Amino acid sequence: MYSSALESEFKKKGLSIGDRVRLKQGTRVYEGLLMPRASKSSTIVIKLDNGYNIGITTSEFELVKKGAKKHQEIPCHDLKGEISILGCGGTISSKVEYTTGAVYPAISPCELKKAFPEIEKIATIRAKQIFALLSEDMNSRHWQIAAESIQNEIKDGAKGVVLMHGTDTMTYTSAAISFMLQNLPVPIVFVGAQRSSDRPSSENEMNLLNAVYAAKSELAEVAVCMHATSNDDFCYLHRGVRARKMHTSARAAFQTINGSPLASVDYKSKTLKQLSPFRKRTDNGSNKLEVDTKINENVALVYVHPNIKPKLISSLSDYDGVVLVGTGLGHVPTNPFGDENAKPILKELEQLVKSGISVVMSPQTICGRLNFNIYTAGRLLGDIGVIGNGADWTPETAFVKLSWVLGHEKNQKKVAEEMMANMVGELSERSEF
Amino acid sequence: MYSSALESEFKKKGLSIGDRVRLKQGTRVYEGLLMPRASKSSTIVIKLDNGYNIGITTSEFELVKKGAKKHQEIPCHDLKGEISILGCGGTISSKVEYTTGAVYPAISPCELKKAFPEIEKIATIRAKQIFALLSEDMNSRHWQIAAESIQNEIKDGAKGVVLMHGTDTMTYTSAAISFMLQNLPVPIVFVGAQRSSDRPSSENEMNLLNAVYAAKSELAEVAVCMHATSNDDFCYLHRGVRARKMHTSARAAFQTINGSPLASVDYKSKTLKQLSPFRKRTDNGSNKLEVDTKINENVALVYVHPNIKPKLISSLSDYDGVVLVGTGLGHVPTNPFGDENAKPILKELEQLVKSGISVVMSPQTICGRLNFNIYTAGRLLGDIGVIGNGADWTPETAFVKLSWVLGHEKNQKKVAEEMMANMVGELSERSEF
Repeated sequence: MYSSALESEFKKKGLSIGDRVRLKQGTRVYEGLLMPRASKSSTIVIKLDNGYNIGITTSEFELVKKGAKKHQEIPCHDLKGEISILGCGGTISSKVEYTTGAVYPAISPCELKKAFPEIEKIATIRAKQIFALLSEDMNSRHWQIAAESIQNEIKDGAKGVVLMHGTDTMTYTSAAISFMLQNLPVPIVFVGAQRSSDRPSSENEMNLLNAVYAAKSELAEVAVCMHATSNDDFCYLHRGVRARKMHTSARAAFQTINGSPLASVDYKSKTLKQLSPFRKRTDNGSNKLEVDTKINENVALVYVHPNIKPKLISSLSDYDGVVLVGTGLGHVPTNPFGDENAKPILKELEQLVKSGISVVMSPQTICGRLNFNIYTAGRLLGDIGVIGNGADWTPETAFVKLSWVLGHEKNQKKVAEEMMANMVGELSERSEF
Repeated sequence: MYSSALESEFKKKGLSIGDRVRLKQGTRVYEGLLMPRASKSSTIVIKLDNGYNIGITTSEFELVKKGAKKHQEIPCHDLKGEISILGCGGTISSKVEYTTGAVYPAISPCELKKAFPEIEKIATIRAKQIFALLSEDMNSRHWQIAAESIQNEIKDGAKGVVLMHGTDTMTYTSAAISFMLQNLPVPIVFVGAQRSSDRPSSENEMNLLNAVYAAKSELAEVAVCMHATSNDDFCYLHRGVRARKMHTSARAAFQTINGSPLASVDYKSKTLKQLSPFRKRTDNGSNKLEVDTKINENVALVYVHPNIKPKLISSLSDYDGVVLVGTGLGHVPTNPFGDENAKPILKELEQLVKSGISVVMSPQTICGRLNFNIYTAGRLLGDIGVIGNGADWTPETAFVKLSWVLGHEKNQKKVAEEMMANMVGELSERSEF
């Protein structure tokens, strides 16, 4: 929907979703099909002829040509399939209606069946849109909504849950759900698409069908199901706390960091090939869902770099937690001005820790394990109470875990203990030192 | 050297570098060999029996056993070899003297020859220590010192320059030197080691010898020469503005981002195999070194994440430049609270840009190209003047380039133009869109 002001302007000009419109903004003119919005918007979004959507804020627009017959959502009630598909938005949950060119969230069960008829060969489904956002707009409140929605689906008998999610911050959310929902009785599978379905290179069908297949499997973990290679042949399942998006646009953008994927999945050949150990479903009821969706929104993620200023660190004094993305084995500049007694960055970090803020290290290199024992910088960080020596987490997982731990624990020492205790595979035993 | 207070304490207790000492700090006791320091230090560094160095600040220490004969630097003057080796510090430029266990910077030419006798089979050398820092402590002033030292070596007839550098921030420095010294007449080769030479797994000899071999080659670029694989078989040369450290500890930690390495190098088989196009030496004097070492120290590198606060952005108002490490194709949260008119992060970014600060985007995914044209968030960022649409640089190269461009250019529009103009291979033509 659009803002009420815009909706009334549209009415005046006889404009409906799917119509071809011309917009002016300054000297620039844009033409395309009027797109629907998920939330009240004063920005007009049109699909250009090149397939891209753009959002423009302007009061100058006009009808060029009425669109074809409007999109009709097929009513479809009382569907209670075994696999629950929840829509969070993102590229994957959009589908172009080719008569109008408009993108609709193809998330109602019947829409999904219509868009991807092969789904029914894999599983019976139910589906719900819990919100519709591009994932860069998601925050920890959305993580909570997602966790609660999953919990409800499991209570309601779902034998597996698929989350359709934008790729930008998918692994922040998959990590959050991994901590919020533990001892899982069923698989929770995140799926997205790097290319929207109106582009010939879109991989959303294969990803979604593989995700539904994985949601039926014996896996009882949070996983990310995405293209394994640049061929449309199969997907990898990455552990939710270990997955990372490592390319802006390639289809095979997701990788398992510091480990192998959990499995490869190919719904066509009905194979889920285990590639590393994972938690499994049980029949005896021992996997009883544990829920803790409390989260602390007041955590910063800070990149360490040459010329970083001590005052940047001191400006973090009103956060409850700080995750540093350090250089090398987990370092910050300790002596950047050749004066071993000054250590301005360290002193500011020490102040933060002394004031009760939990400070956690993570690696700028993305891959590998932190180690505070090899160089002086690491030792000094350990001495002032920075958490993370020996951890092999990504910056994003460290950030999400700290936000979650600080949601239920205030005691600094206990926060440190919880951070360094492996909960859901986010920390592995050190293999090297 | 140590602080004068410590030096006088050492004298009182009859302690010299290389002696076995016992330190107490609270209830903890450490024993090892007393190590030398490059700058005045009040932290005592000892080498533990496990080979690791630790730094401890304490006044409780005592002699356990006098060390073996002291390290003697072999005097060696008037050496004017064809390849100049400059030492910046880091793991590679340290060498253990096995009689005492002490690590000395093995950087004088004779020391280098003694440590790595094979060097002479590759090239005649000259060498100089320009500073001795672990690279996490380097800042843009060190980049300038390095650039000026290289310039002097080239003026002085060096046919190639090797920089021994710590790995933590090596690629920040290699990018800085790439911008500061252009139209190179000779190769400038960065080299480091992930494991110190007292560990059996150290790769510093192979890396250094390959770097010297590469410095004799026809390459006329800034390159990083590091282990190619986990076997000790050959090195890759990565373009200085494209290299990135992608693992905390593995020897093959360095990768070329968004491209292939320039070449593989193997001094043993005397091969430098070109893997992608690079600039070459000329005989006609057309490669005449262009020097601009001016740099702006007042640039921030900021990680974008869910729950990022608008006030974090507004707190950047006293920087001259800001590099964002955005999600996906180069995004920030535009509408995290479901209110399309609020856009708090965007508004603060717009304020920064309006106040004259250059704001540049870079990718959190590390790999791939930014694209502001696909999603609304990108378009809005482009509209408010954020720089980087279409760029395929790493966060670190974007940061270094902005620091360098702001060193000589204040006009915001010209800064944007210079940022988006490829100078030394840091931007490639878009291949995809």
